[in-house]
Amino acid sequence: MAAAAVASNGGAAPVPGRPASVYSEVQTSRIAHALPLPSVLRSHFTLADGPASTAAGSPDEIAKLFPCLYGQPSAAVVPSAEPVETKPLKIGVVLSGGQAPGGHNVICGIFDYLQERAKGSTMYGFKGGPAGVMKGKYVELTTDFVYPYRNQGGFDMICSGRDKIETPEQFQQAEDTVNRLDLDGLVVIGGDDSNTNACLLGEYFRGRNLKTRVIGCPKTIDGDLKCKEVPTSFGFDTACKIYSEMIGNVMTDARSTGKYYHFVRLMGRAASHITLECALQTHPNVALIGEEVAEKKETLKNVTDYITDVVCKRAELGYNYGVVLIPEGLIDFIPEIQKLIAELNEILAHDVVDEAGAWKSKLEPASRELFDFLPKTIQEQLLLERDPHGNVQVAKIETEKMLIAMVETELEKRRAAGKYSAHFRGQSHFFGYEGRCGLPTNFDSSYCYALGYGAGALLQFGKTGLISSVGNLAAPVEEWTVGGTALTALMDVERRQEQASDQEGYGGT
Amino acid sequence: MAAAAVASNGGAAPVPGRPASVYSEVQTSRIAHALPLPSVLRSHFTLADGPASTAAGSPDEIAKLFPCLYGQPSAAVVPSAEPVETKPLKIGVVLSGGQAPGGHNVICGIFDYLQERAKGSTMYGFKGGPAGVMKGKYVELTTDFVYPYRNQGGFDMICSGRDKIETPEQFQQAEDTVNRLDLDGLVVIGGDDSNTNACLLGEYFRGRNLKTRVIGCPKTIDGDLKCKEVPTSFGFDTACKIYSEMIGNVMTDARSTGKYYHFVRLMGRAASHITLECALQTHPNVALIGEEVAEKKETLKNVTDYITDVVCKRAELGYNYGVVLIPEGLIDFIPEIQKLIAELNEILAHDVVDEAGAWKSKLEPASRELFDFLPKTIQEQLLLERDPHGNVQVAKIETEKMLIAMVETELEKRRAAGKYSAHFRGQSHFFGYEGRCGLPTNFDSSYCYALGYGAGALLQFGKTGLISSVGNLAAPVEEWTVGGTALTALMDVERRQEQASDQEGYGGT
Repeated sequence: MAAAAVASNGGAAPVPGRPASVYSEVQTSRIAHALPLPSVLRSHFTLADGPASTAAGSPDEIAKLFPCLYGQPSAAVVPSAEPVETKPLKIGVVLSGGQAPGGHNVICGIFDYLQERAKGSTMYGFKGGPAGVMKGKYVELTTDFVYPYRNQGGFDMICSGRDKIETPEQFQQAEDTVNRLDLDGLVVIGGDDSNTNACLLGEYFRGRNLKTRVIGCPKTIDGDLKCKEVPTSFGFDTACKIYSEMIGNVMTDARSTGKYYHFVRLMGRAASHITLECALQTHPNVALIGEEVAEKKETLKNVTDYITDVVCKRAELGYNYGVVLIPEGLIDFIPEIQKLIAELNEILAHDVVDEAGAWKSKLEPASRELFDFLPKTIQEQLLLERDPHGNVQVAKIETEKMLIAMVETELEKRRAAGKYSAHFRGQSHFFGYEGRCGLPTNFDSSYCYALGYGAGALLQFGKTGLISSVGNLAAPVEEWTVGGTALTALMDVERRQEQASDQEGYGGT
Repeated sequence: MAAAAVASNGGAAPVPGRPASVYSEVQTSRIAHALPLPSVLRSHFTLADGPASTAAGSPDEIAKLFPCLYGQPSAAVVPSAEPVETKPLKIGVVLSGGQAPGGHNVICGIFDYLQERAKGSTMYGFKGGPAGVMKGKYVELTTDFVYPYRNQGGFDMICSGRDKIETPEQFQQAEDTVNRLDLDGLVVIGGDDSNTNACLLGEYFRGRNLKTRVIGCPKTIDGDLKCKEVPTSFGFDTACKIYSEMIGNVMTDARSTGKYYHFVRLMGRAASHITLECALQTHPNVALIGEEVAEKKETLKNVTDYITDVVCKRAELGYNYGVVLIPEGLIDFIPEIQKLIAELNEILAHDVVDEAGAWKSKLEPASRELFDFLPKTIQEQLLLERDPHGNVQVAKIETEKMLIAMVETELEKRRAAGKYSAHFRGQSHFFGYEGRCGLPTNFDSSYCYALGYGAGALLQFGKTGLISSVGNLAAPVEEWTVGGTALTALMDVERRQEQASDQEGYGGT
């Protein structure tokens, strides 16, 4: 069966009726890239249930929120001596939240499962994210339709969106849609928030005795949706490799020129995983990890001093260049900045900011000290850039530029004190959108294809409220494990609420 | 001979004494990449001179500036029935100006020429650019030393610099160095400015009856050093491919999300060639070409309206996303902006900028109108950001952010007039340093190797004041032509001065 799967998407010949010239050379070459499947998906298989599950935390509350689904076992795809009886299915798929390389391959994996294992099936793609489910906007996915998206980046096959199915009316809308399409299953491809929503939807459908099952798939380039059963979310591998290539180029540039410090801000607001992985791949001079900064309760001055110390030490060795990696969410990990911004919001809402600076007396002493410590341009940004509600826009603060200015100031102090005599020139970078939609790596291509193929199998066996789980990823693809993990088992009430605030991020939801 | 060349740098086995693990997988794989040579360089060859040359413009003045070299013929490498007698050479090489992918391969090409065709030769790399020539800072290049840099990006083998050999004292320093090292030849790898300097140095050495010859090599990612004999400068191909890949990712992102206009500023101050080439490779919604803007004498309002019209037209079709490419030097191509900045410099130097704005009456009417047309943040940047001489820093203005703000303002006007009702969200990008030091493409790798190998041949035959010229580049490498073009033949007095102002750019010099 796997051989057939490979052949069906592996040929360089274009789909009949579609001229080959429509696609670029690289698209064609990637479309032709053959996808291996884990051995367990290549011949007869069945599902084996594990023991009953609990929750990652607050099991009682989770049990109350998910009376139908709580405690259900995880499932593993296992070899079977004989073919298991299958029936044609009607399956919908939806992409939720920010793009991550590989999303198209999840869809192709489900599609190929249905083509090969459940002949006569129908597959729909909901357009523009969860709003497509609520509004009933969809497209029927056919061989021709999915063909050009195989192994390609982006979510443009059916597009994505950040809407959520939350209110009773919205759940009703979703119910209407799946009933109208007579869906056996819905696959939700998204981050932690979206998977939580997928579980709520699965619970709702089960509670309403609908036949529609819901399966989640782990997506976020931030890499912070993971656990024992879900070793990584897809897109992280590709994004880190794209960023690392660019960081590597900048490092070579720094070494060749010998006169710039490049401050590179990288995607990842709630987690610094991308920065950490890129640091491991590229070995920069400094890599700031938000979680470390938070754990050590570091101040902005601590962070500035840390970088400045490295600059000074390298200057002593004759090196006046380097690369500093900064996670996008760094500021969110520094408590004193959060406090300053809260106070500023309050003052700006009620008081006049006078030129002479008398307004500053309304800041608490620590916040005032921090404000005075900030470079003038950042002070101005904090006072000028406001969202429609009058709040300071933290996301608009370009952390990499702020740190360059602060290191400059600190170096001038040290120069005045006779402790530094070299030249410092900072260059700022932000690597973000470039990595979200890159061509998926071979790993992400294969991982996503297995996630999708496995999701199809889970639906065939009537599973709901599981997240497609492919494991043993350090081994060759043939040895990967495939199955589904109870979404309720990954949940914690606290955690759920914390994640909800991340909805404007790039990666997850 | 070529087979030997390929074998010498083609083996995956590390150099004895150097552990393989020092290099990354991708480095090792690129080091092992076999470089083809043009057929004419693969067996016996000699040089054939062309007819006497003139200059691109102002021939009389060029002739006066280059009394020894003016009018000398170009030379072509042509097959020879018998081996031509060669002797060991002492050759120096220097990298001048901004990095461009492939520089290391020029050095490897010269090195391999000497190893294979002029046994017993010695090669020196001057460190840190022309300053290395003046100060006599160099390293002897050996098989082990150059090995890890084959087919690698960056200029870190011997580093580069932007100093110039200009004054009589500096020419004397250069003379001292080449005499001390007993150099037969010096290869200058640089942009148009550096090649002009190379020619001046060649003229000076010839005038002083030194044996040291000077050969130039065409380098700049900007792609604006070219003519009939030099079809392209190296690095342009790689840089455009790196930028185009990122632009392609951003385009996929735009299409997947459906809600952002990405404004991408690209390297290239004096020329928009990179933007044009990337536009041809990626087909964005808008690509601004500085030279077109200048030729049509467009104003900033024209440019803004052009983008805004596209945004509105796409909004009518339901598309509220897209990609706009902007050359780094756009502002330099808009005459009214240059005029405004000149007036602002004058006012800021002598007058007080009062809050009420009375100072604006000192602007000429057209400049005042332009100033009022600018977004507030840009107005502030123009008034605040000053260099040490008190001048407005044009390069610090982030053109992509300025255009986003101006399009926003224009769209709000149209919204108020009932002509636009959609949503516009701009995202800014600058792709610059990431492309200067990328891994050279196969084209740039081969092109540079042939440029270097050819430069070695030109020196062997006693040529000076030529630029290494490899042509017929659209054909397979075997069919490429190799030779040297008289640098004086490419010169124009006017052009020389115009280029001199570009010394702070990224690519050339």
